[in-house]
Amino acid sequence: MKSETVQISGHLMDSGILSRVLDDIREYGGDYVIERFDVGHDAGDPSYAQIVVSAEDDEALQRLLMRLQTRGVNQVDPGEAEVSVAEHDGVFPDGFYSSTNLETEVRLDGRWIQVQNPEMDCGLIVDDAGVHTLPMADVRAGMKVVCGASGIRVEVPKSTREEGGFGFMDSDVSSEKPQGVLVRQVADGMRAAKEAGQKVLWVGGPGVVHTGAAPAMVELVKAGYVDVLFAGNALATHDIESALYGTSLGIDLAMGQGVEHGHEHHIRAINTIRKAGSISAAVDQGVLTGGIMHALVTTGKRFVLVGSVRDDGPLPDVYTDVIDGQRAMRAELTDVGFCLMVATMLHSVATGNILPASIPLVCVDINPATVTKLADRGSSQARGIVTDVGLFLEQLAGELVPDYRRR
Amino acid sequence: MKSETVQISGHLMDSGILSRVLDDIREYGGDYVIERFDVGHDAGDPSYAQIVVSAEDDEALQRLLMRLQTRGVNQVDPGEAEVSVAEHDGVFPDGFYSSTNLETEVRLDGRWIQVQNPEMDCGLIVDDAGVHTLPMADVRAGMKVVCGASGIRVEVPKSTREEGGFGFMDSDVSSEKPQGVLVRQVADGMRAAKEAGQKVLWVGGPGVVHTGAAPAMVELVKAGYVDVLFAGNALATHDIESALYGTSLGIDLAMGQGVEHGHEHHIRAINTIRKAGSISAAVDQGVLTGGIMHALVTTGKRFVLVGSVRDDGPLPDVYTDVIDGQRAMRAELTDVGFCLMVATMLHSVATGNILPASIPLVCVDINPATVTKLADRGSSQARGIVTDVGLFLEQLAGELVPDYRRR
Amino acid sequence: MKSETVQISGHLMDSGILSRVLDDIREYGGDYVIERFDVGHDAGDPSYAQIVVSAEDDEALQRLLMRLQTRGVNQVDPGEAEVSVAEHDGVFPDGFYSSTNLETEVRLDGRWIQVQNPEMDCGLIVDDAGVHTLPMADVRAGMKVVCGASGIRVEVPKSTREEGGFGFMDSDVSSEKPQGVLVRQVADGMRAAKEAGQKVLWVGGPGVVHTGAAPAMVELVKAGYVDVLFAGNALATHDIESALYGTSLGIDLAMGQGVEHGHEHHIRAINTIRKAGSISAAVDQGVLTGGIMHALVTTGKRFVLVGSVRDDGPLPDVYTDVIDGQRAMRAELTDVGFCLMVATMLHSVATGNILPASIPLVCVDINPATVTKLADRGSSQARGIVTDVGLFLEQLAGELVPDYRRR
Amino acid sequence: MKSETVQISGHLMDSGILSRVLDDIREYGGDYVIERFDVGHDAGDPSYAQIVVSAEDDEALQRLLMRLQTRGVNQVDPGEAEVSVAEHDGVFPDGFYSSTNLETEVRLDGRWIQVQNPEMDCGLIVDDAGVHTLPMADVRAGMKVVCGASGIRVEVPKSTREEGGFGFMDSDVSSEKPQGVLVRQVADGMRAAKEAGQKVLWVGGPGVVHTGAAPAMVELVKAGYVDVLFAGNALATHDIESALYGTSLGIDLAMGQGVEHGHEHHIRAINTIRKAGSISAAVDQGVLTGGIMHALVTTGKRFVLVGSVRDDGPLPDVYTDVIDGQRAMRAELTDVGFCLMVATMLHSVATGNILPASIPLVCVDINPATVTKLADRGSSQARGIVTDVGLFLEQLAGELVPDYRRR
Repeated sequence: MKSETVQISGHLMDSGILSRVLDDIREYGGDYVIERFDVGHDAGDPSYAQIVVSAEDDEALQRLLMRLQTRGVNQVDPGEAEVSVAEHDGVFPDGFYSSTNLETEVRLDGRWIQVQNPEMDCGLIVDDAGVHTLPMADVRAGMKVVCGASGIRVEVPKSTREEGGFGFMDSDVSSEKPQGVLVRQVADGMRAAKEAGQKVLWVGGPGVVHTGAAPAMVELVKAGYVDVLFAGNALATHDIESALYGTSLGIDLAMGQGVEHGHEHHIRAINTIRKAGSISAAVDQGVLTGGIMHALVTTGKRFVLVGSVRDDGPLPDVYTDVIDGQRAMRAELTDVGFCLMVATMLHSVATGNILPASIPLVCVDINPATVTKLADRGSSQARGIVTDVGLFLEQLAGELVPDYRRR
Repeated sequence: MKSETVQISGHLMDSGILSRVLDDIREYGGDYVIERFDVGHDAGDPSYAQIVVSAEDDEALQRLLMRLQTRGVNQVDPGEAEVSVAEHDGVFPDGFYSSTNLETEVRLDGRWIQVQNPEMDCGLIVDDAGVHTLPMADVRAGMKVVCGASGIRVEVPKSTREEGGFGFMDSDVSSEKPQGVLVRQVADGMRAAKEAGQKVLWVGGPGVVHTGAAPAMVELVKAGYVDVLFAGNALATHDIESALYGTSLGIDLAMGQGVEHGHEHHIRAINTIRKAGSISAAVDQGVLTGGIMHALVTTGKRFVLVGSVRDDGPLPDVYTDVIDGQRAMRAELTDVGFCLMVATMLHSVATGNILPASIPLVCVDINPATVTKLADRGSSQARGIVTDVGLFLEQLAGELVPDYRRR
Repeated sequence: MKSETVQISGHLMDSGILSRVLDDIREYGGDYVIERFDVGHDAGDPSYAQIVVSAEDDEALQRLLMRLQTRGVNQVDPGEAEVSVAEHDGVFPDGFYSSTNLETEVRLDGRWIQVQNPEMDCGLIVDDAGVHTLPMADVRAGMKVVCGASGIRVEVPKSTREEGGFGFMDSDVSSEKPQGVLVRQVADGMRAAKEAGQKVLWVGGPGVVHTGAAPAMVELVKAGYVDVLFAGNALATHDIESALYGTSLGIDLAMGQGVEHGHEHHIRAINTIRKAGSISAAVDQGVLTGGIMHALVTTGKRFVLVGSVRDDGPLPDVYTDVIDGQRAMRAELTDVGFCLMVATMLHSVATGNILPASIPLVCVDINPATVTKLADRGSSQARGIVTDVGLFLEQLAGELVPDYRRR
Repeated sequence: MKSETVQISGHLMDSGILSRVLDDIREYGGDYVIERFDVGHDAGDPSYAQIVVSAEDDEALQRLLMRLQTRGVNQVDPGEAEVSVAEHDGVFPDGFYSSTNLETEVRLDGRWIQVQNPEMDCGLIVDDAGVHTLPMADVRAGMKVVCGASGIRVEVPKSTREEGGFGFMDSDVSSEKPQGVLVRQVADGMRAAKEAGQKVLWVGGPGVVHTGAAPAMVELVKAGYVDVLFAGNALATHDIESALYGTSLGIDLAMGQGVEHGHEHHIRAINTIRKAGSISAAVDQGVLTGGIMHALVTTGKRFVLVGSVRDDGPLPDVYTDVIDGQRAMRAELTDVGFCLMVATMLHSVATGNILPASIPLVCVDINPATVTKLADRGSSQARGIVTDVGLFLEQLAGELVPDYRRR
């Protein structure tokens, strides 16, 4: 048996974090002894725990220690980080440290160096500029990669209770919640990000258009509350189809009469934009004159559209290579201070994968499974709202856009 | 093989009704020959079909003919109704005619007599006052009951296309629909009922309170758009708990902070009302001063609360005998001109069971299964809206209550 | 501010129980100081915590203390129980102790007395025979009722980790789990109950019949693994309809051809049993010759059918008064050692309300919401399996009934 | 107004197809006169309808006519197909004919030419070899593309009622169905395809592994009932992770103990295969020794893995460009005679998009939305089974693999 002493501090009691740490140890086949436990006496005090964890061999112990770091558990005596050289393009050395989305520091030559761009499931690359995360696909032979759990420490974001940051309802996913309060809290979060000079990132699915919420989102774009949009071919196409033909996958939005599968309109809308060359070119040529994509182009906002295997067309702006698409998404994360995910499972999970845990994240969907899946995949900061997307965005515009309701 | 000639007229082509008729025949093990089919040439014209249906014996044929009547199919030569006498309390004679919720006439002694109170799955009782529906539990030995399918004709409500009545979105259940249009259509339906001097019936579940929609519903009660409420112990208790303690099953509505299972508050709220004697007495005594039930009492509106096996308490106003409860619900159906069902499967299905097909019916729930189940059980006029109940009621109040949004 | 010192012991760290206790204190508006915390050093050791809780007045403190008892938290110095006399039938005294479903003791005249029939949300009645739970509807003027939280202590069931009892998968509700293992665990739980001379309680919905699982359940009845069945009118009617006409709400089970809404068969099946007088009489008269209800009657097993407001008929055996129905269900709980809930939300929650927390409870449904709701309502021992009910029961029969698969 | 006479024949009455045709006309803003309607007198006879459809201008009429062809409605006098030349790579000419997934013929120079590879939402390309479908992304400047609806006729697959082909339950999606019958019908469909010398195509999601169904699927691969697998990075990675570490996203399959998010195992499994070079290389090197992917490699079966934006890694075999992935999937469709989709929305819709309507298609998922979405997108032949994937595959193996249950 190999063992190591680890420590964790913070609101261990009320956050349930210690239970999860001990669960992890058991699940990884390890064992533990709690050496020291200083409990915060008053409700506001932090606690501190020191635990000896053990596993049957060093490899298992290292994997367990890496696992515990996703909970904010660090080694008492972390030592120095171990670095190996990648031998093949796109392949990490065996035993590579798999990163968390938490604030992370690496000790090299006795100095603690802050890791840039914390992201889940990446490697930590050491070069002259310091230490940064890199996804597996981008590693190149010869790069220096951190291996094992030594010489690394992470910091869990302080909970909102402690610091009065983005306050938000309890994390349980529920469709039975007072929605008006939730709408106001999201509006407050967006305003706070803008006031801090940060960007608001939206991740959206086609439901935004189907539910008739596009006009509300257009107003939110114009009011400056959408700095970047991550989406797929579907949201953009349905929005453009709606602008060109007044339909969205067969829903006649003006009349409220259902039109099932408007194949022709869908595929023709894509063809029209392909002919123009790009969404932006279609706006310039006067072909596209309304909708969400039009609003993003005319206000100079950013969007990243990443394709999927079920796409028709796709639109010329869509990244058909998903790894290229991930890179384009990463490039837009700088200065993001708030993230809202609306009506999309695929792109929400994709964004959750690359987003640092320090960025407030709210996920809105009528389907509880989307919200649950996001939290299950490690985006522990995710807060879920199970509600109707159309009514939610209309109410959000009512909160954020002056005079929205009189229009 | 026994056979009979039946007929049906109307918009057979565009309503898909003929397909369903032929499906029924097959499903009941029968056969058919279409003798005559006059198709409406233009889009607005009705069609007419005359069909010979056959089954292996008279009993099977009679059951098939009764089944077809739920689709509006009548016998060309209906003959006279056959009447048998019930031998036992609570038991119909064998071969009793199981009623539909459609407008129905019965031929007795050569005269067509209109059936009062059309309701599904009842018997048709003949007495000096005419013919009326009666549920199985209420039949008494000696009553005269219509048997077999002879001498009966039904009339399917005209579709909205034909008569410009309560226009509404296509019946498909979908969460991907422009909700603003739907809210306005429900508001129009309620206004039309009130203008025609009819009552608006609400059927509600506890989600109305959990989603924070109670204030909106209170305003709708005060504005006169809630004449009758059918609900269970849960809606009333959570509403009263919220008025007494500011919580609803543990949701602190004002702060938006979740409080799981407030058992004490729940059971104490019930005890408090039991002590007062009734909800109305609690209002009179100044014990209950707010919420939906308070608004109903102070505006003199009606409510019927029917219990279920999972109830705590229950409140003193709750019918603990479900058959008594059904009777109380039936007694409130007179002059109802519009029905809105919100966030309840149990009471929605119960109301659908007793409601004539001629009354417009809209069902709002975040769970598509509730809406589907309602239509599956025979409430073919049901229109479903899959959305967030809280935001929906807030928008509905915005449409119907002057100055609602400025409050 | 009023305060009281409470204590809790057990596996506080790995069960997350302490977090929930502190959450409760905050949610009830109280405050706390942790006076003492002895942590179990090794993975198998229990921990002990002593906490001073405070609230703004004695009433709030008493309510908070009662709340904490649902978590197994007792007062260090519980004192004597306070007893008041009920003044009205069906109404508890103000400040009554609202019971948990945990093992509970009450101190009267210095002696600890075990509470009989632990059940949630009841009062504790003191009489010459001792102390027992009583639902609100059954209390009578003059009875002595325990009030406040003093003089009461509860005991949380030991987790399976500690005692090697009914081992079962983690409580998270998930449709993504290896089902074969789960089936075997349920089979083991049933066998263990039978070997201990205890009864197996089933709670079932109509989905048991719709999914074609009735033959499997019949075999399980015959093999002795169904001692009591709690259900509603629907399960029994669909089962009987299936036996009489070979259909279940329009599903032709033999051919796998869907038949929507077989109204006639449904209502006629009920009428047939009403004519016979009861299900058992229909079996005796040779009217009912197969199905689940037939198997229960012929093997002398018990069933309690409790009605709901959406019922047709109902069958003569159905309790139409839900409070009478609850009483009948309670009367069958003696010696129950395992409970399986299948495909019903309403009756599962109703059973969860009256079942002691010490009885292992597994809930099987294709809808995750049913399982979640059960746990949310306080049945903390509930283990959920989200799966297809038909295939599950077929596999369960394969495990428990010798030669089942060769039939 | 422009008008055109169209015709349709078949079981118009019982399939509801005529209702949908008339709905389409209205939804596209057109009008109609039914000129002739010959109804099949007996239950087995086909009907025939001739309809004059009109729209406000020729462009609208052409779009409407193309729409009607998706229902099997052809022009009485189709004339000659019109062909235009594509001017840009990846862009169809305006007014291009958007293809259906039905059997299609095009009239050129007076001859009817069969379209190869019917697929939805493609263009029809005319070259020396005849006429074939081509997705938008693959069109090149200079290619000849069919435009407008003239000169085209389609044929709807005969329903199973008419020809006794792959018989299957009614298409309604329902979780309340006798599953044993359904399992047998799928087994029969697979056997029939194999006996006809055709391939069985599987489309799978990671739920296949999570539900513990991998061993059953491995046996089905070995028994020859899986010729091609379409999947994403997730199914293959979880299968490989399970083979390498005995876990799948944290589920310990052998013990049935849940392990949430096994990040390290997940990302390490991918790294291991990337190091080997490919899945097949990992099998050859003895690195990968079990699981579904191993079974496919060792039995020489085909698989196409197409990535998505949420992927980690991905595995070296995964197409990261989704359009390349679609091409690879299309290339495997030759001789496919049966398609089973299991536990995946994304890849099921993607496969539905490219699959001819003539291939029987069954979709199995615990989530009804997956099945509904598939049918909504135009895969009208799709039959849905809402059930537990793990138990379903185990039962399917029990039907198809000799002695499976004794293992």
